[in-house]
Amino acid sequence: MTQHHLEIRIVPRPGLLDPEGKAIHHALDSLGYESVKNVRVGKAIYVDLEAPTSEEAIAEAEAMCRGLLANPVTEEFEVGVASPAAEPGEPS
Amino acid sequence: MTQHHLEIRIVPRPGLLDPEGKAIHHALDSLGYESVKNVRVGKAIYVDLEAPTSEEAIAEAEAMCRGLLANPVTEEFEVGVASPAAEPGEPS
Repeated sequence: MTQHHLEIRIVPRPGLLDPEGKAIHHALDSLGYESVKNVRVGKAIYVDLEAPTSEEAIAEAEAMCRGLLANPVTEEFEVGVASPAAEPGEPS
Repeated sequence: MTQHHLEIRIVPRPGLLDPEGKAIHHALDSLGYESVKNVRVGKAIYVDLEAPTSEEAIAEAEAMCRGLLANPVTEEFEVGVASPAAEPGEPS
């Protein structure tokens, strides 16, 4: 069993309202960042998972997304193997 | 001016409490996902930004993180150019 470090990204489906993104866009505009054209906010979830292969780790994480982490009606998700440097705060 | 599609990831600093991650870890455990060893939850923010070069776009996004998006005391951030396929829900 190897430990895999996965990154799961969950974002609102395109076309669906994203109030948090709208609020951030508005705030950035007020601060003078007028070059910003669009903001969407989702979650980044980092999971350490034991599995024989990274394919099995990803499959298990996708099952977790479908069963708990993402709302399939309003959100889409993507699972990938996080490189050690991919997570902010780890060795850079 | 080109439009750049950036991905900003913001996560709690290592060692700081992450109650949302703990709650998700506990919920996954209850659902039988016992191979999960650690969960940390952050934000994934996708920003469309007009700037002459991608370096300038990234520098502007980092300024936004310092000024609004991230709490420098408790959070760390990383800005990167999102490939069109990097955001869940876009052409896969």
